[in-house]
Amino acid sequence: MTLEYDGTDFVGWQFQKNGRSVQEEVEKAIRQILQSDIRITGAGRTDAGVHARGQVASFFTPSTVDMYSLVKSLNAVLSHDVVILEACEVPLDFNARHSAKGRRYKYYIAQEPRAIGRNYCWHVHQKLDVSLLQKCAHQLIGEHAFRSFCKLESDLHGHRCTVTSAGWSQHDGSLIFQISANRFLHGMVRTLVGTMVNISRGHTPYEKFEEILEVKDRAAAGMTAPAKGLFLEEISYS
Amino acid sequence: MTLEYDGTDFVGWQFQKNGRSVQEEVEKAIRQILQSDIRITGAGRTDAGVHARGQVASFFTPSTVDMYSLVKSLNAVLSHDVVILEACEVPLDFNARHSAKGRRYKYYIAQEPRAIGRNYCWHVHQKLDVSLLQKCAHQLIGEHAFRSFCKLESDLHGHRCTVTSAGWSQHDGSLIFQISANRFLHGMVRTLVGTMVNISRGHTPYEKFEEILEVKDRAAAGMTAPAKGLFLEEISYS
Repeated sequence: MTLEYDGTDFVGWQFQKNGRSVQEEVEKAIRQILQSDIRITGAGRTDAGVHARGQVASFFTPSTVDMYSLVKSLNAVLSHDVVILEACEVPLDFNARHSAKGRRYKYYIAQEPRAIGRNYCWHVHQKLDVSLLQKCAHQLIGEHAFRSFCKLESDLHGHRCTVTSAGWSQHDGSLIFQISANRFLHGMVRTLVGTMVNISRGHTPYEKFEEILEVKDRAAAGMTAPAKGLFLEEISYS
Repeated sequence: MTLEYDGTDFVGWQFQKNGRSVQEEVEKAIRQILQSDIRITGAGRTDAGVHARGQVASFFTPSTVDMYSLVKSLNAVLSHDVVILEACEVPLDFNARHSAKGRRYKYYIAQEPRAIGRNYCWHVHQKLDVSLLQKCAHQLIGEHAFRSFCKLESDLHGHRCTVTSAGWSQHDGSLIFQISANRFLHGMVRTLVGTMVNISRGHTPYEKFEEILEVKDRAAAGMTAPAKGLFLEEISYS
């Protein structure tokens, strides 16, 4: 299933004892429609407040319900902040998380305060230097150990990620950062954005960016940008 | 002052005993900053759930505070769903409502269900015929008595409005209706949209549209489209 959700009122993708998770919301809907307890696997574990336009989740069911009816019925019972965009049958060995070859995220920054869409962007009132942001983004491309941009917990699979594209664009008064990689560490996009913004607003000299990337120390990087600006856009499979 | 607001959690622009109005919210902020009770006049009285990107409001104050500081201080105390975009001094006889020469609204329709931005559009799942919508819109241009598209209360200033432009466009999977006129009756844009959508999805034959416009009877027109798709975009002054 490909899913869109508004992360504002969720504690994140993953099931948690305290609070409403997207995973739980979708599993509850599946239980209601297919009348069986099913555990779904999401491709990316988005944090509280992070949105998705292209999350992918997979599950196994012996049910023979057709995909069109399943999507329609699930959307009819799901709360309005989650929508199943599409669903298809996959081979039995498919796993939304482990079969994924790449992920794409976008991060939205507004330079003016906003009422409409305020939960979908980070408002940075200092004027940002887009060419500096762009220079930082270009340094990310390639394979690096993104240890400096990872939340403190250790990552079982190491810190190396291959960034296939990264860049900033401007649209409708917003600055948009887009990044694609084979994998992302926990908190990586938001810490990258926070650090680039610090450089762009002059709090950190640009020359430091390469150093931060190479020192492999979270303390060297900048603040974590707010969750509400982040969108999981797409998961790609071979 | 030019204001942007997200109408989702408001009972509308105008002060009401029960519920949170934009007018009250802004007057409360002015009271806090200028330390005096001030009544503001809004150019358009938007209903509950209707958004604004260009509402205009005026008020009189003997205060000599400069405009830049006023905007900054008001935004600092206003709740996040209202933002003052700009403010300027005007002649004493200026009145945001009576001095206005024209108003521009937009209405957003989504053809696919959405989680993100679901409070900013009306989701119509039947496929709409854009050329039919466009033909209806063109009929609106000029001076007409829009009695059929007005909520039942009588309008003190009659029902004649001069529509200077009206049309539909498509953007990012949304259908957007844009209309400019010297004035609008209560509920007019939403009833126009509801009626055009009824025609476009085949519930009402296209030939009926001119008839509805001319019969001057609210019962002839279609449903009122939901408030959440409507945006007050701009008020113009000479």
